[in-house]
Amino acid sequence: MNREQLIRQIKEKKSFLCVGLDPDMEKMPDCVKGEDDPVFAFNRQVIDATLPYAVAYKPNTAFYEAYGLKGMLSLKKTIDYLRDKEVFTIADAKRGDIGNTSARYAKAFLGKDGDFDFDAVTVAPYMGSDSVRPFLKEDGKWVVLLALTSNAGSSDFQTAEGCTPPLYQRVLETSRQWGTPENMMYVVGATKAGMLREIRRIVPEHFLLVPGIGAQGGDLDDVCENGLIPDEAGLLVNASRSIIYASSARDFAAAAAQEAARMQQQMSRHV
Amino acid sequence: MNREQLIRQIKEKKSFLCVGLDPDMEKMPDCVKGEDDPVFAFNRQVIDATLPYAVAYKPNTAFYEAYGLKGMLSLKKTIDYLRDKEVFTIADAKRGDIGNTSARYAKAFLGKDGDFDFDAVTVAPYMGSDSVRPFLKEDGKWVVLLALTSNAGSSDFQTAEGCTPPLYQRVLETSRQWGTPENMMYVVGATKAGMLREIRRIVPEHFLLVPGIGAQGGDLDDVCENGLIPDEAGLLVNASRSIIYASSARDFAAAAAQEAARMQQQMSRHV
Repeated sequence: MNREQLIRQIKEKKSFLCVGLDPDMEKMPDCVKGEDDPVFAFNRQVIDATLPYAVAYKPNTAFYEAYGLKGMLSLKKTIDYLRDKEVFTIADAKRGDIGNTSARYAKAFLGKDGDFDFDAVTVAPYMGSDSVRPFLKEDGKWVVLLALTSNAGSSDFQTAEGCTPPLYQRVLETSRQWGTPENMMYVVGATKAGMLREIRRIVPEHFLLVPGIGAQGGDLDDVCENGLIPDEAGLLVNASRSIIYASSARDFAAAAAQEAARMQQQMSRHV
Repeated sequence: MNREQLIRQIKEKKSFLCVGLDPDMEKMPDCVKGEDDPVFAFNRQVIDATLPYAVAYKPNTAFYEAYGLKGMLSLKKTIDYLRDKEVFTIADAKRGDIGNTSARYAKAFLGKDGDFDFDAVTVAPYMGSDSVRPFLKEDGKWVVLLALTSNAGSSDFQTAEGCTPPLYQRVLETSRQWGTPENMMYVVGATKAGMLREIRRIVPEHFLLVPGIGAQGGDLDDVCENGLIPDEAGLLVNASRSIIYASSARDFAAAAAQEAARMQQQMSRHV
């Protein structure tokens, strides 16, 4: 899905909601645990229920790899199921390696003839340009580069004193030359909404993928006020646990839909 | 395998060689391509041939994920095969995410009851302490944290001007407090051997995993001179392409053994 198609979806649904598909058997309702593939059964029902309110879905690969080969099969079924819908798909894999190796990761998560044909993959910037550029060579696909993350540890290096500019700003300033607003986005944690205005100054045209709303406590209106691009949104706001675990009972899908609808309504005021 | 056992292996084999298992169908000899699982068939023969000369094996997950579910099955067979040998096993996965998510990656690559029971996993530091600490909770397992990588892009952030100390030194100074020399190592690219002495000053007791020897052009004697810990080695020197693709013909395993033996002999002078 290209930028124009993504913006059209955002306008049609009046939503820039991304649903994080992070299945955890300990949090999943008992009613799916009897299925052959509980993880996929859970995802499918969450996707069906939230589809009217979400424009993007983001499985985090850790939650699938934790279940080994079985989990990777659940991930394949999930991306295959999502490919039939008109949604933007992000493999939240946070990969990155030396050039010839990153090219293999690009093939793994963005390759059209591979098992995991996502629209985008999240990439970690630590190893620099030649670790990111191979992902940008996949035609029609996207890199979502980590800039400022939503966790406490982001203060260890990303915003640490002693660097001018701070590392997360250097990552933005350097990497914006590697791709374009047509094939690159940035991860910016909502818990740092105060820094969003500064980030928008550095990357005025790029989409920002914003985690940390909901369970992690970020405020949606703050994010919109500081991060929105007029008439294009330029934001994908991700919520995972607050939606997919809104209920741990038989009504989990309905509860997920209700929470997604609540966020969509809040977003609709800004689109 | 703990530090004491690893050092014993190094002394017994007079080698601190780590063989990188990065299978690429385009470089693999035709004679294995007919096998049901060419990747595992290739790895098994490389492992059998190089075992007298190597103390560690490091599959890079990108080369398996690139082949989708089939590739992940090849990776499982490879780690299961390695578990029966007395060698140190590293999943070169360069993972890292927010705390609860890194805990899932730890389970995936270090969990004793999982599909991929490695001794160690490589981790990217960008997201800071809470993205690394969950890996250190796996009993008897190791984190190998990226510090200074061997690729050109390492100059974009790791050694970039404007940071005092440089980012790679800050990563070493900050992260050495997260674990101990019993459960943490660092990736230090051999192509930066000149910086090894400075790195040894910051982490005098930690093992260093050194890629970039061979195909990437680093010099082994330089690395030993600047990085060795007397009587403990404190180094794992990795070579991938120069060993596993020493020959692309039917004699690939013998050629791999010959190149591994050549490096082991060079190392034996330093052990």
